[in-house]
Amino acid sequence: MPAFKTVALLGRYNTPHNAESLVQLGDFLVERGCAVLIETRAAENAAVSQFPPASYDEIGAKADLAVVLGGDGSMLAAARHLAEHEVPLVGVNQGRLGFMTDIALGRMLEAMAQILDGGYSLEARTMLRAEVVRAGASSHAAMALNDTVVNKGAIGRLIEFLVHVDGEFVYDLRSDGLIVATPTGSTAYSLSSNGPILQPTVPGFVLVPISPHTLSNRPIAVSDRAKIEITLKHGLDARLHFDGQPECDLQEGDRVVIERAPWAIKFVHPPGYSYYAMLREKLHWSEMY
Amino acid sequence: MPAFKTVALLGRYNTPHNAESLVQLGDFLVERGCAVLIETRAAENAAVSQFPPASYDEIGAKADLAVVLGGDGSMLAAARHLAEHEVPLVGVNQGRLGFMTDIALGRMLEAMAQILDGGYSLEARTMLRAEVVRAGASSHAAMALNDTVVNKGAIGRLIEFLVHVDGEFVYDLRSDGLIVATPTGSTAYSLSSNGPILQPTVPGFVLVPISPHTLSNRPIAVSDRAKIEITLKHGLDARLHFDGQPECDLQEGDRVVIERAPWAIKFVHPPGYSYYAMLREKLHWSEMY
Amino acid sequence: MPAFKTVALLGRYNTPHNAESLVQLGDFLVERGCAVLIETRAAENAAVSQFPPASYDEIGAKADLAVVLGGDGSMLAAARHLAEHEVPLVGVNQGRLGFMTDIALGRMLEAMAQILDGGYSLEARTMLRAEVVRAGASSHAAMALNDTVVNKGAIGRLIEFLVHVDGEFVYDLRSDGLIVATPTGSTAYSLSSNGPILQPTVPGFVLVPISPHTLSNRPIAVSDRAKIEITLKHGLDARLHFDGQPECDLQEGDRVVIERAPWAIKFVHPPGYSYYAMLREKLHWSEMY
Amino acid sequence: MPAFKTVALLGRYNTPHNAESLVQLGDFLVERGCAVLIETRAAENAAVSQFPPASYDEIGAKADLAVVLGGDGSMLAAARHLAEHEVPLVGVNQGRLGFMTDIALGRMLEAMAQILDGGYSLEARTMLRAEVVRAGASSHAAMALNDTVVNKGAIGRLIEFLVHVDGEFVYDLRSDGLIVATPTGSTAYSLSSNGPILQPTVPGFVLVPISPHTLSNRPIAVSDRAKIEITLKHGLDARLHFDGQPECDLQEGDRVVIERAPWAIKFVHPPGYSYYAMLREKLHWSEMY
Repeated sequence: MPAFKTVALLGRYNTPHNAESLVQLGDFLVERGCAVLIETRAAENAAVSQFPPASYDEIGAKADLAVVLGGDGSMLAAARHLAEHEVPLVGVNQGRLGFMTDIALGRMLEAMAQILDGGYSLEARTMLRAEVVRAGASSHAAMALNDTVVNKGAIGRLIEFLVHVDGEFVYDLRSDGLIVATPTGSTAYSLSSNGPILQPTVPGFVLVPISPHTLSNRPIAVSDRAKIEITLKHGLDARLHFDGQPECDLQEGDRVVIERAPWAIKFVHPPGYSYYAMLREKLHWSEMY
Repeated sequence: MPAFKTVALLGRYNTPHNAESLVQLGDFLVERGCAVLIETRAAENAAVSQFPPASYDEIGAKADLAVVLGGDGSMLAAARHLAEHEVPLVGVNQGRLGFMTDIALGRMLEAMAQILDGGYSLEARTMLRAEVVRAGASSHAAMALNDTVVNKGAIGRLIEFLVHVDGEFVYDLRSDGLIVATPTGSTAYSLSSNGPILQPTVPGFVLVPISPHTLSNRPIAVSDRAKIEITLKHGLDARLHFDGQPECDLQEGDRVVIERAPWAIKFVHPPGYSYYAMLREKLHWSEMY
Repeated sequence: MPAFKTVALLGRYNTPHNAESLVQLGDFLVERGCAVLIETRAAENAAVSQFPPASYDEIGAKADLAVVLGGDGSMLAAARHLAEHEVPLVGVNQGRLGFMTDIALGRMLEAMAQILDGGYSLEARTMLRAEVVRAGASSHAAMALNDTVVNKGAIGRLIEFLVHVDGEFVYDLRSDGLIVATPTGSTAYSLSSNGPILQPTVPGFVLVPISPHTLSNRPIAVSDRAKIEITLKHGLDARLHFDGQPECDLQEGDRVVIERAPWAIKFVHPPGYSYYAMLREKLHWSEMY
Repeated sequence: MPAFKTVALLGRYNTPHNAESLVQLGDFLVERGCAVLIETRAAENAAVSQFPPASYDEIGAKADLAVVLGGDGSMLAAARHLAEHEVPLVGVNQGRLGFMTDIALGRMLEAMAQILDGGYSLEARTMLRAEVVRAGASSHAAMALNDTVVNKGAIGRLIEFLVHVDGEFVYDLRSDGLIVATPTGSTAYSLSSNGPILQPTVPGFVLVPISPHTLSNRPIAVSDRAKIEITLKHGLDARLHFDGQPECDLQEGDRVVIERAPWAIKFVHPPGYSYYAMLREKLHWSEMY
């Protein structure tokens, strides 16, 4: 009997998807004795009708595992939808890079067979939750697996904001923006803005300004139990992003309150997975000359 | 009754010390009803005989608080000696900078009065312990509050080493050295080598190479529950430092094993202490232009 | 007789301006025997009618010196207008920071007296000129004193571009943008994106990517005799900025060709001016802890 | 008739050398009608007696081209010896990396044939000259192609120094050292200490501190016509290096005066050479993820 009885298939988040690999994987899982669901929109996008379609909530209620065929964007979306339902995720890479999609497409069936046979490891990844407080009332709230970013908008003028952690004043900065990243997000946008890497078991968030008006900033990691508050001091055109997706505009005086989300997402890794090997192979991290 | 009954006085670690402030502080503490000890070497250095001298072990056994009059070097030394005895430390700054010596000399008596009245906060700071394994046997072991550094020695040729974390291969680097820093050490040598800041409640260590032969390294923070191993692959002249003090030479094949020390050191902070204010004021961190 | 016979007054570039300092300076110059012109828009903004208004072209034809009362934005605009007319500029700081406005408002008359008495130094600052080539034809061209930036626009997706220098392929990058800065611009946006400082006598341009998708970029300085070409490979929403002002949208396939402008702008510095002192005082550059 | 009549062979600088490639190259050159000399020490190291041995001075007087079989260290040594004689250099890579040894060993004869047929480009590379002034008198002087480094010595305590450029005060820093690099040296030690790349036609030197006690330093490039002075303010154990070789100890008060050397070294590049390709291939510069 497989380790996971009911498996949901998730496709690309926002681009058309070829049905072939979805069907191939679904057929394989059925053959192995799994019940297979397919996420409604993925089914529509790819015109796959062999497996019962299900909403994220239905998947959350029924599935023991969700397999994402896509890239990191698809994993991020799946995590935001499924974390609260505690359905673990595994990713088959159909995107360009894929820090989170461990399984190469060419090894999909082989790796899934190993996973069904119990050859996998489980890893919890912290998520964050941010809400916007405007005039004393919460106006927006969302979760992110990678990061929340407060940044300048279309007009392109820099913004100024205050940061407090657990009520203590941290700094007042003018910059293009500020990234608050989880360990998972520390290898995403934060990294390209010169942030450090936080290995996923480090319970911290990292604060990385984007092109700040100071020579003396250095990224800081704070505890993931901390409450981080970003108050927009100046900025006629500022925005809030979650995992790279625009969430809402911000006004002067708005306060973005960031805390660890109540749920973590669980990743299922195939046998042989190594975080450090992923850094070396996908980022060319520390490759010597 | 004071919060701390027996208080030990500690002086500068390795430079002559003026007796005046030691005596002034000792007299003040006696007046407040404390028993006062003075660390043997500090008593000798400063020629202070009013208070009974005591070794670090005696201080460890008897004192409820140790007050360091000196700079960060003196705090580091005190921490290495007293951590296992669980005697908390507070620092009065007589050095140049003083990230850890919270109290300015001019406010010494005022701040100590507040502390004795219970107006203080306690903060535990993680320490690390490193041992050198040569030919299968442990040859050196020591503790550090800031950092352990493997670096090139006098001849000045670069070294090459392998890093493993919890048995997993991390990277193979040629560089001038590698810093493994605690959160406390993240504002010391690690920072000047472009490492991130870890707020002291983040349970991690940060790995920062010094002038590495790669463009693609980026510092990584790992859990402070991890076992970090550095194996010297090439390097005719390599050394191991703890908190900036040379500990021993290293030979090719030597393995330096770094783990969290079994004891943390406790810092006593005066009222109004703020970690972020310290970063801003002492490091000019994030000072805008 | 003053070193400069006809002096033009220039005000803030894009914000209302108090007449007081303009009138005070104009009166002082008249008293010293100078003919005084005021830039038309500055005269209107500040409602100053004591001095004959003049367009930039008239100023270019008649003035021996232009005094900018404003911030760096005003200096940048003046330089773009007056460089081809070879009118030297001096700045009186009424902005927040002012890397280019050497004279503090409180010392305006004293410093101008010294300058009129010949106590000044002249410094030429290289400018750059960029044009957009679309479908083989030049579609936009403009000059900049600080920098030209190709970056992502409102939608916020990263862009991908190719860089060639003198016809040689340099790199292919995905990033939020690319800054090409003059030495003057090396202390502006380029600096906040981690670029090096080029002392103004270094005849080079520096290429600094913004949040690139590589760990191994490092800024490169190339000769200011070089032709730099940036070809937009991917990016549905990309823009070209000159000195921080949006110039035009870019389409995939557009080529931005950047070369040294045929004219340099000359800065008049008051006695005692030091470039390095400016870096230390205004940027807190290399301030020790 | 070959473009170069008399060709000198130079071997590894400081390690034993296999005779095979030296002899193979010498025979090939003789066959092509060149007169061949071999540097005395290279002849001894490799026990090659087919070609007349010659000192660097004799090579300087007679040779039209010098071919270095070795790594960058061998090129650096050859440049320091031959620059004043204006003998151009070409490198065949027998080292690990080789930024300056353009020709791979396997293509040695093919590339040399092209070069002898005139298929090459010539490039001048700026060198620097530094002298130590102690108590008013010059005590040491030497040339470097890559860099001069003032750094801490064996004891490992940091040093403090003042920097002046053309007599103007630049900064006062405590650090592990300071690198002053040519454009050629900008891809060597300077790069691993986070310096920018200067393309070789940029007539500048770059100043890069090593682990400085400031958060707000940023490398600065100054004109290569400038006179750079480094005055050792504090440091019981400081050293001066040229191209990575220790030159002399420094005492407090010593002044190191650095200027462009009176001679440049000329590099002969084989057809198809590209500086940017070298950066991408050998440094993995700007390699995307």
